[in-house]
Amino acid sequence: MVGVIGDPEASRFAYLSLYALQHRGQEACGIISIDDDKKFLSHKSFGLVGEIFSKDQLDALHGTQAIGHNRYATHGGRSVQNIQPFSFNTSIGPLAIAHNGNLTNSTRLRRELEAQGSIFQSTSDTEVFMHLLAKGSSDDLQERIVEAMSKVQGAYSLALMGLGVLFAIRDPYGFRPLVIGKRKNAYIVVSETCALDLIDAELVREVEPGEVVKITPQGIESSLIVGGKKERSAFCSFESIYFSRPDSKVYGQHVYGVRKKLGEELALEDNVDADVVIAVPDSGVPMAIGYAAKAQLPFEVGLVRNHYVGRTFIEPNQAIRDFGVKLKLNPIRDVLYDKRVLVVDDSIVRGTTSTKIVRMIRNAGAKEVHMRIASPPITHSCYFGVDTPQRENLLAAQYHIKEMCEFIGADSLAFLSTEGLKKVLEDQSEQKYCMGCFGQGYLEAVNDEIKEQPTDQADGPGLRYP
Amino acid sequence: MVGVIGDPEASRFAYLSLYALQHRGQEACGIISIDDDKKFLSHKSFGLVGEIFSKDQLDALHGTQAIGHNRYATHGGRSVQNIQPFSFNTSIGPLAIAHNGNLTNSTRLRRELEAQGSIFQSTSDTEVFMHLLAKGSSDDLQERIVEAMSKVQGAYSLALMGLGVLFAIRDPYGFRPLVIGKRKNAYIVVSETCALDLIDAELVREVEPGEVVKITPQGIESSLIVGGKKERSAFCSFESIYFSRPDSKVYGQHVYGVRKKLGEELALEDNVDADVVIAVPDSGVPMAIGYAAKAQLPFEVGLVRNHYVGRTFIEPNQAIRDFGVKLKLNPIRDVLYDKRVLVVDDSIVRGTTSTKIVRMIRNAGAKEVHMRIASPPITHSCYFGVDTPQRENLLAAQYHIKEMCEFIGADSLAFLSTEGLKKVLEDQSEQKYCMGCFGQGYLEAVNDEIKEQPTDQADGPGLRYP
Amino acid sequence: MVGVIGDPEASRFAYLSLYALQHRGQEACGIISIDDDKKFLSHKSFGLVGEIFSKDQLDALHGTQAIGHNRYATHGGRSVQNIQPFSFNTSIGPLAIAHNGNLTNSTRLRRELEAQGSIFQSTSDTEVFMHLLAKGSSDDLQERIVEAMSKVQGAYSLALMGLGVLFAIRDPYGFRPLVIGKRKNAYIVVSETCALDLIDAELVREVEPGEVVKITPQGIESSLIVGGKKERSAFCSFESIYFSRPDSKVYGQHVYGVRKKLGEELALEDNVDADVVIAVPDSGVPMAIGYAAKAQLPFEVGLVRNHYVGRTFIEPNQAIRDFGVKLKLNPIRDVLYDKRVLVVDDSIVRGTTSTKIVRMIRNAGAKEVHMRIASPPITHSCYFGVDTPQRENLLAAQYHIKEMCEFIGADSLAFLSTEGLKKVLEDQSEQKYCMGCFGQGYLEAVNDEIKEQPTDQADGPGLRYP
Amino acid sequence: MVGVIGDPEASRFAYLSLYALQHRGQEACGIISIDDDKKFLSHKSFGLVGEIFSKDQLDALHGTQAIGHNRYATHGGRSVQNIQPFSFNTSIGPLAIAHNGNLTNSTRLRRELEAQGSIFQSTSDTEVFMHLLAKGSSDDLQERIVEAMSKVQGAYSLALMGLGVLFAIRDPYGFRPLVIGKRKNAYIVVSETCALDLIDAELVREVEPGEVVKITPQGIESSLIVGGKKERSAFCSFESIYFSRPDSKVYGQHVYGVRKKLGEELALEDNVDADVVIAVPDSGVPMAIGYAAKAQLPFEVGLVRNHYVGRTFIEPNQAIRDFGVKLKLNPIRDVLYDKRVLVVDDSIVRGTTSTKIVRMIRNAGAKEVHMRIASPPITHSCYFGVDTPQRENLLAAQYHIKEMCEFIGADSLAFLSTEGLKKVLEDQSEQKYCMGCFGQGYLEAVNDEIKEQPTDQADGPGLRYP
Repeated sequence: MVGVIGDPEASRFAYLSLYALQHRGQEACGIISIDDDKKFLSHKSFGLVGEIFSKDQLDALHGTQAIGHNRYATHGGRSVQNIQPFSFNTSIGPLAIAHNGNLTNSTRLRRELEAQGSIFQSTSDTEVFMHLLAKGSSDDLQERIVEAMSKVQGAYSLALMGLGVLFAIRDPYGFRPLVIGKRKNAYIVVSETCALDLIDAELVREVEPGEVVKITPQGIESSLIVGGKKERSAFCSFESIYFSRPDSKVYGQHVYGVRKKLGEELALEDNVDADVVIAVPDSGVPMAIGYAAKAQLPFEVGLVRNHYVGRTFIEPNQAIRDFGVKLKLNPIRDVLYDKRVLVVDDSIVRGTTSTKIVRMIRNAGAKEVHMRIASPPITHSCYFGVDTPQRENLLAAQYHIKEMCEFIGADSLAFLSTEGLKKVLEDQSEQKYCMGCFGQGYLEAVNDEIKEQPTDQADGPGLRYP
Repeated sequence: MVGVIGDPEASRFAYLSLYALQHRGQEACGIISIDDDKKFLSHKSFGLVGEIFSKDQLDALHGTQAIGHNRYATHGGRSVQNIQPFSFNTSIGPLAIAHNGNLTNSTRLRRELEAQGSIFQSTSDTEVFMHLLAKGSSDDLQERIVEAMSKVQGAYSLALMGLGVLFAIRDPYGFRPLVIGKRKNAYIVVSETCALDLIDAELVREVEPGEVVKITPQGIESSLIVGGKKERSAFCSFESIYFSRPDSKVYGQHVYGVRKKLGEELALEDNVDADVVIAVPDSGVPMAIGYAAKAQLPFEVGLVRNHYVGRTFIEPNQAIRDFGVKLKLNPIRDVLYDKRVLVVDDSIVRGTTSTKIVRMIRNAGAKEVHMRIASPPITHSCYFGVDTPQRENLLAAQYHIKEMCEFIGADSLAFLSTEGLKKVLEDQSEQKYCMGCFGQGYLEAVNDEIKEQPTDQADGPGLRYP
Repeated sequence: MVGVIGDPEASRFAYLSLYALQHRGQEACGIISIDDDKKFLSHKSFGLVGEIFSKDQLDALHGTQAIGHNRYATHGGRSVQNIQPFSFNTSIGPLAIAHNGNLTNSTRLRRELEAQGSIFQSTSDTEVFMHLLAKGSSDDLQERIVEAMSKVQGAYSLALMGLGVLFAIRDPYGFRPLVIGKRKNAYIVVSETCALDLIDAELVREVEPGEVVKITPQGIESSLIVGGKKERSAFCSFESIYFSRPDSKVYGQHVYGVRKKLGEELALEDNVDADVVIAVPDSGVPMAIGYAAKAQLPFEVGLVRNHYVGRTFIEPNQAIRDFGVKLKLNPIRDVLYDKRVLVVDDSIVRGTTSTKIVRMIRNAGAKEVHMRIASPPITHSCYFGVDTPQRENLLAAQYHIKEMCEFIGADSLAFLSTEGLKKVLEDQSEQKYCMGCFGQGYLEAVNDEIKEQPTDQADGPGLRYP
Repeated sequence: MVGVIGDPEASRFAYLSLYALQHRGQEACGIISIDDDKKFLSHKSFGLVGEIFSKDQLDALHGTQAIGHNRYATHGGRSVQNIQPFSFNTSIGPLAIAHNGNLTNSTRLRRELEAQGSIFQSTSDTEVFMHLLAKGSSDDLQERIVEAMSKVQGAYSLALMGLGVLFAIRDPYGFRPLVIGKRKNAYIVVSETCALDLIDAELVREVEPGEVVKITPQGIESSLIVGGKKERSAFCSFESIYFSRPDSKVYGQHVYGVRKKLGEELALEDNVDADVVIAVPDSGVPMAIGYAAKAQLPFEVGLVRNHYVGRTFIEPNQAIRDFGVKLKLNPIRDVLYDKRVLVVDDSIVRGTTSTKIVRMIRNAGAKEVHMRIASPPITHSCYFGVDTPQRENLLAAQYHIKEMCEFIGADSLAFLSTEGLKKVLEDQSEQKYCMGCFGQGYLEAVNDEIKEQPTDQADGPGLRYP
């Protein structure tokens, strides 16, 4: 997600930022700009940023203001109507919006709005925000934003653009990251700092949880914290573990360094004999390097990611061992053969990939395979924008660690403790993290929002599988 | 390049093999199969393997025999006529051919054939081989192959397919790799072993330099070495350094291990103080790991390769520092900031990329940048199938090391010595390597073939730049 | 425009009907169906019916109900959002709508709705109707339709589909045609009878001006005339003259026969010596045949329409006489050479095409060229759905007939009189026609609707050019 | 087929000519030009001329020389290799060729050439001509052409282009038309004069049967008749009846006028009571006008051709009467209802279309349907380039006229006599026509060529179906 104001190449900077943020969503992307005649111009399509914009199409997105969005393929329908940003007219002027996160009370709000005659075009929860803005009672956009924020619940980092103005908005818990950068006269709002690096913009600051920042071509005009500062934040810990790019600074911390420390912490908690430490690329690499350094074991590249994996692949009819994973990861037999291999990954979700990786490493001749995960077991679904599966599909929601180890076929399996995770993430920060997916934290912090959700995530795996 | 015989899924195995060998050529690819009615079926197009074959198109390539080819974008024209494999009729039946390598006397042979009334459809040197086969005097295909081999010079590994037969052919110096694998009843001929791994085929053996192996659905029927065994081979050293995949075994050696040893050897020859060792991905990674281990320095990931780089990119009008390289490589500021950085790469060709990498590392805050290359300076163009530029564009053909270091802006620069390279490559093998691009070796070994080439590569850089 | 209910091949019949009605709009088309799970399925795109539906796409449009639309390229923007049919949710269930015609008070209604917080997605006036339906106060859809009809003004023939129901709606003046057909158990609502002929459906009857017909799978359930029957209708005379297909029956009359009679009437009013009568294809052909028969002159094919004219064409740099028109029409020199040619066309709009046609006939060797138009001069723009240009671009709004004749370069020029037109159209019908574009009729009939339009059409050409 | 020399817009003129000649082939088309650096540039693709050339692609075809070709979909395979023009190198320089017609001894010549080691890339008989030119013994291109012409047999009109020269070549019987035009300094060789009309070129003259015309930028340099002038020509009568455009002059006669005379002649031979004469468009229209005038019956448009018929169409599952033909032809009920209809067509091939047309006219309410064909029964396949089906699929090869009439379901059926055809075609011309498909003429004229063809066409229908 990106918003730019104050440069005639606004749409180019939006494009470059989306390019840098491609890892945050690969289903579709789009850019909307406002030209000098106050006309909103748009180009949106399924596909990667580098594929869907031709030079002519990008050049046609004139103007000094633009917002852009990468869409993450979630279980919500694949429909061209759902590709963001969205633009819409209101009685106080035309607007465009891009949203990162997930509202937790959108179904109820949508029902209420439709009863009043509002027509929805997409299945996106973002459209709820649009209708709240359109029906707002004030003549001032900022007041309408505050009014809408009083109604929605859940995770949202937003770039909202009107004529001559760009708003950067973050929900009161600050689930998703959002930062402001500056390049010459232009201000750029992006999800991660890596986008600022690509375009040579300097980091100004993070948008605070609950903050509404109003930016004009003249600079940051005003800012307010809606509902005052929360007692505690709920930063998404999965951003640091897996989602963000390693060269980004997220929630004030360098992601690469956090991951390396997670690996080090895991090594400190661990105790196993191994000949070599390898990573499951890419997030696992700094974790494995940290682990190897702390455990004084050699780090090697045991699995190479294939750069040419496309989105579709034609399978053979004949059974081929570990076919799917071998397309994506190439085992280096030279490194693995006849070795006791310790392999570090960032997380286990369904467990199917881990199973294939363990078997692939064994087939390459490893004597032993020890799987190490540099975060705790994922026992709960995420309601705040990470596309984790239904709880019944989470391996750690169904099994104890011993059973998980058998399931994936490893010689041993260990996870980082939640204490270890908190030590790495929260010791260096005043802020608190959402660890809801690890069965921690969001129960207290964001109690209200999830009350209308099905309550199947009430108890932990220990209770279910004694 | 791939050839398959003896399985009803022949075209699928060809497809999978091309997929595994995508790094050998990304411009175009194609597959030709022979169906049960002895009809040749073909699908060829510009693009990556994963993009150009739909399930329907692949399913239409019926039959138990198939060959395939990935085309490497060389300075020769981008024309649909040049996409291999080629099929053609001869008086002894229809054939199809796929070629990896480069003939050195093709221009002369082409001229002679045209004077006899042969019509060429492509600008590919492979077509010369086709016309020689078509005009052969014998009724036996194997004899025609031997006859053709007596006329062509240079580098060629070939898969040649007729009705019910597949020939695997390698030139007498064995420039390019070629191996035979087996999967159940099927035989598969491929450039690198990584393709055999993907499809669960076992490695049978390498095709010998100068060997013509005849394979039928019943197995390897016969083999002969044309002109008897050469005194010495001329394996391409650049395959081991850069071109082949790290999980392949090439010329009998594991590529990952060779690269790690090149890094170790480079460390032994070197003497510099640094805080951290990083790699230019991907070939540089095992080299940097080897170097770091031998030099007892910490290895870190300082540059992350961007997975979403497409083939076209729209540049901004405003100058952005190191823009092109930043698209492809993301520097991890956390690793580089305030450090003395030693960065390991596989080679320097034109020097433009190295220059950008050095500057990018400095911009990320490094105190010192020491560039280390795990192979000798490239001073000569390749005539045997690697697409190195004209000699005047090779940095090491123009400058001494000190000047090169200034050109790329590093604090120091060092290359592996040719002795070091030979030690790593040839000590473990009875065979000899072509090191022509390093100003070594091919002068004696393959003297005849290059005589008709322009002689601008006669003297080395030392002579020209005292 | 088409609506189908009561057949499992509903979307196929919609597709075939759109195919037959392609002449009514070539910019874009779409179909929405409702499947057995009450889900709305849609396929819409720019292009011709025959181009944009693949078999798979059409087969995916399951269900026994469907509506479809061909979009006419008007000056309103070319945007994917404007492609009909539109689907939308309301508090009384999901609906889909397709609209033929033009609302005259849509700008004002849109402004009012936006002030109430409604969000518009398209620039289409049809969306006004949707919002009126969504905001309706009744729980009954038919009542909401009547309520909406009390607010909109102008020309509209609508197919409106809800779960299990299809409404056929026509504005109180009946500007655009709309008929109901039946095929086995299915009911089909279409703009012209030619679509019924293609799918072997029988014509049930026309929808009356102001009528709302409710159709369920059981048949026509009810019908009401909103506001009671109008004193007089305002059928579009241009449908009969030019727009409808010659094999359709429109407003109760056979189009071919009407056009032939217009030609006959024109001949009766005319008095010129000619050797041969030719037509400007296609609408001019029956007119020319009628003229020739009545004038006892030979009819010949002097201009052949080129069947392969695509939508784009690359022009030569060098000047070629009558290039644009020669691409579309091929003059038969054999017919024209050394002749006094009388050429019959349906109308003159800007006059540019007529100019080229006259010159092309002359260049083919005609001695004299007499242009005859089987309708009166077009002096006013249309506000009811025919895409005539702004008034200042209408040749007859700027010039007297003598000047027009000089402009197009003919030896003589004559139009059918408005009396002649009325005689042909209205003598055979109780109903009245809109002849607003001929400066007749809609001033009295539809006075209110145009009051909010700019009044530049107040006076006729006679006043301006004495 | 077209060749242009002497204008910097050569490829544009080729494009426009192909556009005008689109009716001669709709499967594929292509243009090859020669730029100022003597490089051959090419763009070829499946599809219509208007679809496959973008402005950029056409602009890239630089140079003052170009040839082009429209490919006719024949039973020979649909392969990109078969799209003309073809370019090829020879020992006396590069050439490009475009061919209209069909060689009758190509199979034998191909076999001979392959035995000598020639490699064929296409299944086109044109490639035989290329190999003969490439293997020619002379250093002079014109001599090689004459040598090749001494070997090939059958129908060929060729445009052959070398550096600075364009040859227009026609086989000794002159089966296919070929004319030379001039526009300013440029010479243009085309199949039909309608292409010259489109680009404002004047007709210079026809290429004579057996003639080789050499054209340079300076004009027509030389001409010779190979083998001297034949006693009699064999112009394709089907060109005049059906294939050529009505506005062309072919074999020295206006096609429209020929067709009208065929209709008149048919009326003279005929004797039937009817109320109205209609045509099967398009070639039938002048025939019907001629018939109606001579028979003093009214001519009406009873069938309108649909302008939007694409190349693919999705059929309904339910049976619809006369579906396929109704897509293409729309019956005007108003004209046909309760009438005795005489319908004129150019020919009957398989009889399936005629059957549908008769039924469609009846379904539109006609009392009687009398089918009249303005040419004789087609009893034999064509070997000279018209894609008539195998003889067993020709209705007139299987049935007598009475049976044919029953087959198509008409009330009566009559054909023009061969005497009538000859009277119209040959009375106005010194030349003779090939009427082989009517069981006449080519037996004596072109005896040799067909001897190697299967002899299933030896006896006529009368013999087989007494």
